[in-house]
Amino acid sequence: MIVQQYKKMLEGKSVIRELSEFATERGKEIGYDNVFDYSLGNPSVPVPQQFTEAITDLLKSKSSVELHGYSPSLGIPSVRKKIADSLNNRFGMNYTADHIFMTSAAASALAHALRCVTVPGDEVLAFAPFFPEYRPYIELTGTVFKTVPADTESFQINFEVFEEMLNEKTMAILINTPNNPSGAVYSVDTVKRLAELLLAKEKEYGHDIFLISDEPYREIVFDGVKAPYISAFYDNTLSCYSYSKSLSLPGERIGYLAVNPACTDAGLIAAMCGQISRGIGHNCPSSIIQLAVAEVLDLTADMSVYETNMNLLYNQLTELGLSCVKPGGTFYIFPKALEEDAAAFCRKALQYDLVLVPADSFGCPGYFRMAYCIETKKVSRSLSALRRFVRETY
Amino acid sequence: MIVQQYKKMLEGKSVIRELSEFATERGKEIGYDNVFDYSLGNPSVPVPQQFTEAITDLLKSKSSVELHGYSPSLGIPSVRKKIADSLNNRFGMNYTADHIFMTSAAASALAHALRCVTVPGDEVLAFAPFFPEYRPYIELTGTVFKTVPADTESFQINFEVFEEMLNEKTMAILINTPNNPSGAVYSVDTVKRLAELLLAKEKEYGHDIFLISDEPYREIVFDGVKAPYISAFYDNTLSCYSYSKSLSLPGERIGYLAVNPACTDAGLIAAMCGQISRGIGHNCPSSIIQLAVAEVLDLTADMSVYETNMNLLYNQLTELGLSCVKPGGTFYIFPKALEEDAAAFCRKALQYDLVLVPADSFGCPGYFRMAYCIETKKVSRSLSALRRFVRETY
Repeated sequence: MIVQQYKKMLEGKSVIRELSEFATERGKEIGYDNVFDYSLGNPSVPVPQQFTEAITDLLKSKSSVELHGYSPSLGIPSVRKKIADSLNNRFGMNYTADHIFMTSAAASALAHALRCVTVPGDEVLAFAPFFPEYRPYIELTGTVFKTVPADTESFQINFEVFEEMLNEKTMAILINTPNNPSGAVYSVDTVKRLAELLLAKEKEYGHDIFLISDEPYREIVFDGVKAPYISAFYDNTLSCYSYSKSLSLPGERIGYLAVNPACTDAGLIAAMCGQISRGIGHNCPSSIIQLAVAEVLDLTADMSVYETNMNLLYNQLTELGLSCVKPGGTFYIFPKALEEDAAAFCRKALQYDLVLVPADSFGCPGYFRMAYCIETKKVSRSLSALRRFVRETY
Repeated sequence: MIVQQYKKMLEGKSVIRELSEFATERGKEIGYDNVFDYSLGNPSVPVPQQFTEAITDLLKSKSSVELHGYSPSLGIPSVRKKIADSLNNRFGMNYTADHIFMTSAAASALAHALRCVTVPGDEVLAFAPFFPEYRPYIELTGTVFKTVPADTESFQINFEVFEEMLNEKTMAILINTPNNPSGAVYSVDTVKRLAELLLAKEKEYGHDIFLISDEPYREIVFDGVKAPYISAFYDNTLSCYSYSKSLSLPGERIGYLAVNPACTDAGLIAAMCGQISRGIGHNCPSSIIQLAVAEVLDLTADMSVYETNMNLLYNQLTELGLSCVKPGGTFYIFPKALEEDAAAFCRKALQYDLVLVPADSFGCPGYFRMAYCIETKKVSRSLSALRRFVRETY
């Protein structure tokens, strides 16, 4: 018999996917160029040319066995070393290759991090608004997923409620800054306060509380904002990174887990991830992609378009009277809907070919997300649709 | 606290890895060319030139977003379709794209297949000798791994013991033909008898028993032998495939799970795998590698060297009086050691710089494995070492 748990999951529908499919269908009718599709967080800017050159050079210069042979299950040692060095230079850390575990992007890094520090029955806390996939990621490990309601003033952390929710079963806190969907970047003050609280609770409970930091948007920050490097503030941090957004290659499935060298059992965790991999069928990312990424570690795609788009949208939305925290990074903006039921709001927007995502599944009812990783021209054209929608409807 | 289960696993040592490390160290002393390293199953022949050309063409002809954008979590639809067509042409099946789920090679296909059809507490049976990683693959899902002792006469199936071991808790049977480590290829008779027995037991127990068929060596078969396509004989079959061996690209982590269109819930299983992926952090293999492999589906690397090596070794081993079933495929040979303790036998062989792997962890004590995916010249040179070892020791 096939397993009922997964069969049942097929009945659940992803709002984001449904909206994205609507946009595609509608595009067939009126031309996709005329659908203002803000549904999907799929990077729109090209990969850096140096990445393409790196693959081409590898294909020319390396033997097939060097290039396509088995990578050790923790990743290719030279690649791990380069990543450690790059992080040390950029963030003043002291990683060695032994602290870096190569993963099939952030989803895989999170899957390993969760299994490293929790067992079924433990509690994992995350802060709303959160990426909806966190729920299956966490619940399918057998742990209990609890979410702290959003601080909608700033999309920083609602510390009062958070502190009440912490308890002896709390083994890990999952954070995501710069944040999908809010675009908020945790301030140094937020991160320091978080670290202090967790240290106190570790002492009180007599066990570690790990901070699992999901950082795929780390490099997408806007003028004047600097994203604090989380692990520098709290020793028991596992940083989960993906090159999907910063290098615009989400299909290549490449990222890593970086173990803070000062955390409990720091020297064992990457190796433990290799053991976890045996149970979940992960055997490191593609070898040629590992080698190519290692050549462009400190580059990013040209992401200035995201900031341009953000400013266009932020100005228009606030001018129309929507309440909205100005994003400090990512390619998302997260305004409050103009009626309590964000799903109804987004349904009405569809009549103006505006595809907006209601944020109930992000744990923040009444809000909606716009993923503005699309051409600036289209963003500009969408503004009049936004104006008409709001003025004619509210 | 980090999870003790995985921490403990770090204490376990892989005999294969230890021997491989010995070979590398010894190589530094006497030159790796003089170490007859039969430890690792790492393909030694180059990837087909057409694969390299396919990647190069893709980099030139496709936009970055087409090439490196998100693949759907079940895999790229056009790639799934091409694989279905190829399997239909070659094996007379009637797969559609909906029956194909793209995976990070066979390990990932097995991880999904196991989770599709078993829950913790169920029993999964495999036949000795078996790939040692099957134990963690299976046990870490929470199911019970039971192994049927080897039929050492032929390395087909020991049906008497197998039938005794089947019971109501048996939910899946894991087979691997052509087999690592024996090199045996199950005959049509074996596969038919297996299918008949499982059908009868399904009826008796009133539930499905799935056959999980691990087929990375499907294309490596020798003169006169044809590997039956397992799924053609038994409807409830999930075929787990990897291009690692046939295309010599184990580092690229690419393969698939093919769901027999006549199996229970055939239309749901690939989609269910997408749900399973959410829990284990698998999000399909690299997009460029999917697209490149789709261009060379019916090609293989030039694997004739494996048959040449097999014949050299088989003739020498039998001439020296070692008992050995002639391999029908793979790049392994699996002789009986000349003393009861295969580990002691292999230790003594090290003095002749012969790196052989004792088969206790393969579930077949008293035997040893030689992985002859190395240069034929080296195999030839190793024969005199083999002769000296056996004649001077036994």
